[in-house]
Amino acid sequence: MDGSFGDRAAAYVDRVERCLDRALPPADLAPTRLHEAMRYAVLNGGKRVRPMLVYAAGECVGASPGQLDPAATAIELIHAFSLVHDDLPAMDDDDLRRGLPTVHRRFDEATAILAADALQPLAFGVIAGASELSAPQKVALAGLIAEACGSLGMTGGQAIDVGATGSLLGAAELEAMHAMKTGALIHASVMSACCVADALSDEETNGMDAFGRHIGLAFQIRDDLLDVEGATDVIGKRAGADAALGKPTWPALFGVEQSRARCAELLDAARASLGIFGDRAESLLWLARLIVERSA
Amino acid sequence: MDGSFGDRAAAYVDRVERCLDRALPPADLAPTRLHEAMRYAVLNGGKRVRPMLVYAAGECVGASPGQLDPAATAIELIHAFSLVHDDLPAMDDDDLRRGLPTVHRRFDEATAILAADALQPLAFGVIAGASELSAPQKVALAGLIAEACGSLGMTGGQAIDVGATGSLLGAAELEAMHAMKTGALIHASVMSACCVADALSDEETNGMDAFGRHIGLAFQIRDDLLDVEGATDVIGKRAGADAALGKPTWPALFGVEQSRARCAELLDAARASLGIFGDRAESLLWLARLIVERSA
Repeated sequence: MDGSFGDRAAAYVDRVERCLDRALPPADLAPTRLHEAMRYAVLNGGKRVRPMLVYAAGECVGASPGQLDPAATAIELIHAFSLVHDDLPAMDDDDLRRGLPTVHRRFDEATAILAADALQPLAFGVIAGASELSAPQKVALAGLIAEACGSLGMTGGQAIDVGATGSLLGAAELEAMHAMKTGALIHASVMSACCVADALSDEETNGMDAFGRHIGLAFQIRDDLLDVEGATDVIGKRAGADAALGKPTWPALFGVEQSRARCAELLDAARASLGIFGDRAESLLWLARLIVERSA
Repeated sequence: MDGSFGDRAAAYVDRVERCLDRALPPADLAPTRLHEAMRYAVLNGGKRVRPMLVYAAGECVGASPGQLDPAATAIELIHAFSLVHDDLPAMDDDDLRRGLPTVHRRFDEATAILAADALQPLAFGVIAGASELSAPQKVALAGLIAEACGSLGMTGGQAIDVGATGSLLGAAELEAMHAMKTGALIHASVMSACCVADALSDEETNGMDAFGRHIGLAFQIRDDLLDVEGATDVIGKRAGADAALGKPTWPALFGVEQSRARCAELLDAARASLGIFGDRAESLLWLARLIVERSA
């Protein structure tokens, strides 16, 4: 492996954006307004953290980028779907996402609901249609992603978050909510590489699993911190939105300093859990630091 | 095969309802409100037309009920998801579904959006986790269902329908919209049996494919007719709702008599396309008649 992951990260982002562009129906194909909205929701300059995690985890377990493209693409489609629905008036009621009008603002509410609804099956269709993967690999990936985005994962976490607005959760409940809302899909990103890798030892699988959990939680705490610390023009969405909504967050419960300390702890734990992979874990660790130290 | 499909239909409905009950997370598992809403959306006395089509198509191609359960369950979950979103204020804004308050009326809008969002991955999870099927069968089913419910199928049809409210589509556009909105999932119900059957001839597959398309369109025309003819207490949702919304429908474009004639034509064509299956098609033909002649 040549160079640092920092050098390869941009190439991986380009790679998944080409995959996303190919997976999405063209904007001039009917129903055009729906397809425009789907493309707008996905091809909007997202950071592509989850695809980068897929590719970096692939370096760790010896899976090729071609084998990882379907998972990277599908997971980013699922992530985009969740953002569109989270932004709706009945949920977080956000006007801005990545510095641009949210999908229901740019189009309309019905189109936003349906565009996101169509991104989900597109994700599973990408997996089912992947020519690089065997049928058992596809089944493993589809099962992993279905679980991660369902009622015991991402969507369930969002339901707890929406239901908890205005009330203070306890630490255990908050951590469980974070683990579901953001952690589940981050974890699935990492584990997706295991689905397409050649036989891994239990120790390797368990190490990857622990890394995914630690870094998923760290990602959400960092997100909460950014909402407190960040300026709207840097994070691309309304800063202070969580506090304004009375949302349960890590800094609200523990304060900013303790939240930062928890992030640092989780980064250490994430690093330790990849010990078995030696140098092959370099890229994942680079990404883990990026997640914990990012300013947007 | 003993007895008429009419006798077996109730048993098939029981069968899929047990599968649905098992697939859905228990209502007392957190997040409980989300899980209650998911169960409310699915276990509400629906007619289960799509699962019956799956099982009847299975009789036709020689697939066992156990092999068909995953498809029947997944397709009904997808159907339930679509109804919840179609009923939302930003879409058809319906208060009643199957004689009961719609999910957003019984719970709230955010919960309705999220409950439906969680039904989709549950459907794909049921397929991925089906112990009765081989990996290639699962992949074929997941691909079929993903295509049927995406932007070129059910969700795309709903987008055209919502966008066309208040305007009159031409006959070709209306038929295309119907084929997507309702036809795609009806068609997938029939074709799902082919995914799990032993090698079929091209003639058999094509016959099933044609049957699925004819009966899918007939189903939607019958639905439009019921909205004109039906009483609210019989069809379980607000009668005349389509006309009140200025929605494009078959009777609005062609009148009631021509719409009935088109249904009868489609039934004939559906019957003809199953000729290759001989007596094995008895159940599917029984269902086709039920679809065209139903009063709710």
